[in-house]
Amino acid sequence: MKLLNNLLTSLTQYENEMIQIRRHLHQYPEISFQEKETFKYIMGFYKELDCEPKLIGKGFGIIVDIEGGKSGKTLALRADFDALAIFEDNDLSFKSVNPGVMHACGHDAHTAYLMVLARELVKIKQELPGRVRIVHQPAEEVSPGGAKSMIKAGALDGVDNMIGVHVMTTIKTGVIAYHNKETQTGRSNFTITIKGNGGHASMPQLSNDAIVAASYFVTELQTVISRRIDPFDMGTVTIGSFDGAGSFNAIQDKVVLKGDVRMMKETTRKVIRDQVKQIAKGVGVTFGVEVIVDYDDNYPVLFNSENLTHFVVDSLKDQNISEVNNIVDLGPQNPSEDFSYYGQVVPSTFFYIGAQPEDGGNYPHHSPLFKMNEKSILIAAKAVATVTINYLFFNKKM
Amino acid sequence: MKLLNNLLTSLTQYENEMIQIRRHLHQYPEISFQEKETFKYIMGFYKELDCEPKLIGKGFGIIVDIEGGKSGKTLALRADFDALAIFEDNDLSFKSVNPGVMHACGHDAHTAYLMVLARELVKIKQELPGRVRIVHQPAEEVSPGGAKSMIKAGALDGVDNMIGVHVMTTIKTGVIAYHNKETQTGRSNFTITIKGNGGHASMPQLSNDAIVAASYFVTELQTVISRRIDPFDMGTVTIGSFDGAGSFNAIQDKVVLKGDVRMMKETTRKVIRDQVKQIAKGVGVTFGVEVIVDYDDNYPVLFNSENLTHFVVDSLKDQNISEVNNIVDLGPQNPSEDFSYYGQVVPSTFFYIGAQPEDGGNYPHHSPLFKMNEKSILIAAKAVATVTINYLFFNKKM
Amino acid sequence: MKLLNNLLTSLTQYENEMIQIRRHLHQYPEISFQEKETFKYIMGFYKELDCEPKLIGKGFGIIVDIEGGKSGKTLALRADFDALAIFEDNDLSFKSVNPGVMHACGHDAHTAYLMVLARELVKIKQELPGRVRIVHQPAEEVSPGGAKSMIKAGALDGVDNMIGVHVMTTIKTGVIAYHNKETQTGRSNFTITIKGNGGHASMPQLSNDAIVAASYFVTELQTVISRRIDPFDMGTVTIGSFDGAGSFNAIQDKVVLKGDVRMMKETTRKVIRDQVKQIAKGVGVTFGVEVIVDYDDNYPVLFNSENLTHFVVDSLKDQNISEVNNIVDLGPQNPSEDFSYYGQVVPSTFFYIGAQPEDGGNYPHHSPLFKMNEKSILIAAKAVATVTINYLFFNKKM
Amino acid sequence: MKLLNNLLTSLTQYENEMIQIRRHLHQYPEISFQEKETFKYIMGFYKELDCEPKLIGKGFGIIVDIEGGKSGKTLALRADFDALAIFEDNDLSFKSVNPGVMHACGHDAHTAYLMVLARELVKIKQELPGRVRIVHQPAEEVSPGGAKSMIKAGALDGVDNMIGVHVMTTIKTGVIAYHNKETQTGRSNFTITIKGNGGHASMPQLSNDAIVAASYFVTELQTVISRRIDPFDMGTVTIGSFDGAGSFNAIQDKVVLKGDVRMMKETTRKVIRDQVKQIAKGVGVTFGVEVIVDYDDNYPVLFNSENLTHFVVDSLKDQNISEVNNIVDLGPQNPSEDFSYYGQVVPSTFFYIGAQPEDGGNYPHHSPLFKMNEKSILIAAKAVATVTINYLFFNKKM
Repeated sequence: MKLLNNLLTSLTQYENEMIQIRRHLHQYPEISFQEKETFKYIMGFYKELDCEPKLIGKGFGIIVDIEGGKSGKTLALRADFDALAIFEDNDLSFKSVNPGVMHACGHDAHTAYLMVLARELVKIKQELPGRVRIVHQPAEEVSPGGAKSMIKAGALDGVDNMIGVHVMTTIKTGVIAYHNKETQTGRSNFTITIKGNGGHASMPQLSNDAIVAASYFVTELQTVISRRIDPFDMGTVTIGSFDGAGSFNAIQDKVVLKGDVRMMKETTRKVIRDQVKQIAKGVGVTFGVEVIVDYDDNYPVLFNSENLTHFVVDSLKDQNISEVNNIVDLGPQNPSEDFSYYGQVVPSTFFYIGAQPEDGGNYPHHSPLFKMNEKSILIAAKAVATVTINYLFFNKKM
Repeated sequence: MKLLNNLLTSLTQYENEMIQIRRHLHQYPEISFQEKETFKYIMGFYKELDCEPKLIGKGFGIIVDIEGGKSGKTLALRADFDALAIFEDNDLSFKSVNPGVMHACGHDAHTAYLMVLARELVKIKQELPGRVRIVHQPAEEVSPGGAKSMIKAGALDGVDNMIGVHVMTTIKTGVIAYHNKETQTGRSNFTITIKGNGGHASMPQLSNDAIVAASYFVTELQTVISRRIDPFDMGTVTIGSFDGAGSFNAIQDKVVLKGDVRMMKETTRKVIRDQVKQIAKGVGVTFGVEVIVDYDDNYPVLFNSENLTHFVVDSLKDQNISEVNNIVDLGPQNPSEDFSYYGQVVPSTFFYIGAQPEDGGNYPHHSPLFKMNEKSILIAAKAVATVTINYLFFNKKM
Repeated sequence: MKLLNNLLTSLTQYENEMIQIRRHLHQYPEISFQEKETFKYIMGFYKELDCEPKLIGKGFGIIVDIEGGKSGKTLALRADFDALAIFEDNDLSFKSVNPGVMHACGHDAHTAYLMVLARELVKIKQELPGRVRIVHQPAEEVSPGGAKSMIKAGALDGVDNMIGVHVMTTIKTGVIAYHNKETQTGRSNFTITIKGNGGHASMPQLSNDAIVAASYFVTELQTVISRRIDPFDMGTVTIGSFDGAGSFNAIQDKVVLKGDVRMMKETTRKVIRDQVKQIAKGVGVTFGVEVIVDYDDNYPVLFNSENLTHFVVDSLKDQNISEVNNIVDLGPQNPSEDFSYYGQVVPSTFFYIGAQPEDGGNYPHHSPLFKMNEKSILIAAKAVATVTINYLFFNKKM
Repeated sequence: MKLLNNLLTSLTQYENEMIQIRRHLHQYPEISFQEKETFKYIMGFYKELDCEPKLIGKGFGIIVDIEGGKSGKTLALRADFDALAIFEDNDLSFKSVNPGVMHACGHDAHTAYLMVLARELVKIKQELPGRVRIVHQPAEEVSPGGAKSMIKAGALDGVDNMIGVHVMTTIKTGVIAYHNKETQTGRSNFTITIKGNGGHASMPQLSNDAIVAASYFVTELQTVISRRIDPFDMGTVTIGSFDGAGSFNAIQDKVVLKGDVRMMKETTRKVIRDQVKQIAKGVGVTFGVEVIVDYDDNYPVLFNSENLTHFVVDSLKDQNISEVNNIVDLGPQNPSEDFSYYGQVVPSTFFYIGAQPEDGGNYPHHSPLFKMNEKSILIAAKAVATVTINYLFFNKKM
């Protein structure tokens, strides 16, 4: 399609601009729900264009509607823009100037490609059927995440489908990866406080040892995965924090545990939640301690619409973007993503843009040494452009 | 005996002086191994007398030999003088002026009675057979305690037997309590570091969860007391500290445990130590974690010489001190005492002077509200005077 | 294809014969590796035909080669014929006459359809390209199963591919079910003997309690699934037997545990085996007991060749057998099957013939009340006939 | 005292008769509550004497009152007469002729000495103040024991004090041993049934694994002794039987545990009972299993009256019996004894008669090779005679 080919050509011309935007964001990172300067920066960019960016939801979420010249479906495109509480250890000209804050996950790249793509779509909007809704989302990194409140505030009103991408330094640059249906884990978290009675180590019968109760709890918790969930279903329960620090000779009166749960089905989530609560209750009875469970079901399972994912993959394969040399099924992924909230409301798909540096080195996400191949930015822009144009001109519900 | 009756009469006359000394020490408390001003104060007292106080051992230990006019046995009398790291909460004219330091165990009283008793013994030393060695000991409250290094430096050289007392606010004033043979627990402490490998909570198979390994360790540790020691023997194993604090979604790579062990027999100490180490080793094998055990056998079991204890009790009963209305066997006690080190070298006995305030209230030792009946100071002085004079004139080894 | 259509018509005519054969086998069931009369019965059937049945492998395995008139590929068809050690509780005219032995899994139906199908193939063998090898297998129900030794004895020599089916009372009659790649679990079993020292319950310190050691072992074993395997991979570890029966007042000196392990990947099998052994070793160290592990990796994961399975499904869909109303992907299955051994040697596929009785009742396999819809026998025959004819005439390697 | 000296001389003359009685009983042993022939034998002996033996209580208990010529206190003397379900392995002329039954604890010796002593007391009864009640007790070896029902039937009515002895092959012949106050452990027993749901090992989520629940229960039970009882108090909890035998591949639906509890204080018994029940309840909650606890508090702690024990020891020391060369405090003992029931009703004491064979070998009680030094029989008779005569002539309540 000529319109699309022209769009891709434009994007190629603006590659350097995308990189500069990404570097600017990288240099001035802000942590989740505190992205005030990032917000101003993005708003400034859109105010010069023929469109109306709007603040939406809790924090600094922005939506920008690009109204096509003809009627049609609405496709939302999402990029997140928050950074992490990490001290950057890289030696870069655009290294973070905010100590203890770093774009160590690539959200700067997501925002950069989407801003430029949005502008190019604004330029050709008269020729487009339907509407594109640009979604700049804050606070992906912390529960409950920015998506939830944006949706509540109407970010998906009138939207038919949604697309999101993530750059991945664990995937070679030039590869695009996808998966169908359940794709990233759902997550729950819990805090369990176990209260016994303190006392002197030489007289245990006068106390109620919270460390002993908590330790048995941790061992019992292993049965949730080993005996209670379907062995064909993914599930994890981790006690990431056992806080029972004290002195040698005093019996601890209190332990606070923090737990993390992952799953690929909502039924699994329920089984695990019920079991964690049941075992906590049982420990209270067994050891005569008070057990307070604060259980938080947060990120849903990220579910990619089968139809939409096939459409994305087919569009990309058909277009044969020159920078893309492979499109692969990545299989299900362990981490969680708050893009999953969108998928609960409209059929959506979330896919992955290879961004491994050319030296082949390992620069894991969330590391102080995180480094990405900036060529992935243009690839993201072209991939999403391709899907968007194909989607708008494809005359069927999905 | 006239000599003893005169001595007791003198002590009664100096009761107020003992109380004033105790209050001075109470007002200027110093924590273990830092009792510099206390040391100076005691040394100043002795320098005016016909005797030679000597600094001995690590820290500020003092010994004073009172040489009798005739040959005979040597009896050592011990009082400890360190305070605790506690903020005093009492409203007293002589309340601690050193914030965060408090005589909350009665060592001020021990020192006060012994200084005055020592002076009165110096006055009559020509009439005494044998020798009395006054032992003012620092640092009873912290392992390894002041006793150990004083002994190493010669504090017990030439000593035949030793006596120590402790005021007790849990015993009515007017009561003296004792126990034969094993009387206060021995103690060991250990620190165990368990090292696994950290990682993301959603991918447990790539990590090695130190919290899980440490929790199983705590549950296994219960078998040491339940299955390994003679059920007729006293023993405790407490994990007082389980330090595994972290975040929800990261698998902990390290846990540090602190443990406390009590026993009434050295054979029990060995069984427990061997078992703790064995279980630690087993956890390393079971879970593939690194387990580092730092095990410290510190205070011995406090063992009271049977002969000497009978002699003390008989002497006290015979003398019928007017302020004493009962002498009872207290049975074995859970806490530990570094007086136990002396008992390993010479036959010794340690007994208890009731010091409960007249209102009958509960002012536990080591509490910021600790309060004692000061009448117990004169009782301590008279009891120890009685035992000392009887001992010196009793012409047999014990 | 006319040849196939004629074959299917013949099978319909012989439906009653198949049912009679099945009922005969049902009435005279024999347990694994003791199927002597069953063997004679099958051999008698083949001896009247133009083919040469051969005894092969350990026990009573039979292979019958049906040589086609033209050259081509060789397809093996497998049916198992052993029964279970179960007392039949059904009230049937052909109820088991061997007390404590019952065809409670449908192997009688497998054998019945295959005998008649084999005869019909013999009749038309001149028209067939290639060769069909009929495999009547004993002892599917007990480890190590009959397949292993038949293969060793040459049952798959010259075979290109293999097909097997199982009637399933949990699937509606008229439905055929399949799955691609990993389809039924692999299995390992282990026996662990824990030896301590016996003694009197009142003197635990003189004994070494095997029940305590074994109980901690069972709790530790839960971590294999909860922490050690990839949460996306299927795995189970079950202690099915904990034999530590004794008297109230004697400490047990020995416990014998029996364990069962399932998995869908050989890598998972290895992780579990290593961990079970490691934890067993750890328990030995922790509790000072002797631990003897007898570990047996038996049934492989049943792996269905992707190409062959697609071919089977496509053939069945194309043929549109009148008695078949649905063909579905069943997903992976928890139980194990020794058909998996064949799949390790040649690309094979194993699929399922719905056999739920018309009343819709639940008659689970291995129950004394197991009951199947005998219409499934003809369906099995027609399905395998369809696949076989299509396979022989399809001129490509798979 | 002449009377006593004459009595002791008579006993010496009848030593051989005692041995013959003991050997007769040894040859014809009967198990608890089935001692019919033993009963007849004892009754026959008494019927020829000037006294009236009476059957009393459940089973075959006998009491014989020997009324003195003057008024005074009543002293009961107890000997038990049941044997054990053990196959004798000794090669003796008087070896058990009842297969599977053996006097392997010395009750034959107890009965023998007491019969002859009783007769000698009958001969001199006119000279005695007060009354001696001979108590021949059945069924000491099995809970609830014969003592309980004899007491209920009036065996202690009118009795002031009671004496019992036990021959001990672990103590040198010639030594008499005693202990004051708590002397042998009390005992409780329990049976705990844990009911889950069975199922196939490959589908744990559809079952509820009783072995897993029971194993966690056993590990939690360790905390009763390690954390709940006073570390200065004796206590044990043993699971002597864990009955969960089954097959490899089926999840167990039921486990039955049998437990044994020992203690030296009734307060400890209560703490342990409450904790066992609490933990059982907790396991039910934690794992969703049904837990049925059948708890039986049986033998009390054997408590020896301080006054009576001192009286016994003093009497024995004063009399200086020629065959006795030492009288020692044995300390508390781990096993339980149903003599403890008598001590709950009247001040009693139970002491031990050394019976080690001269070769110094180890012939433990309850062993098929149990062997005793028969010289202990005369010693028992003389010791009890000495205590009895002293007691009757000592004119004070105890």
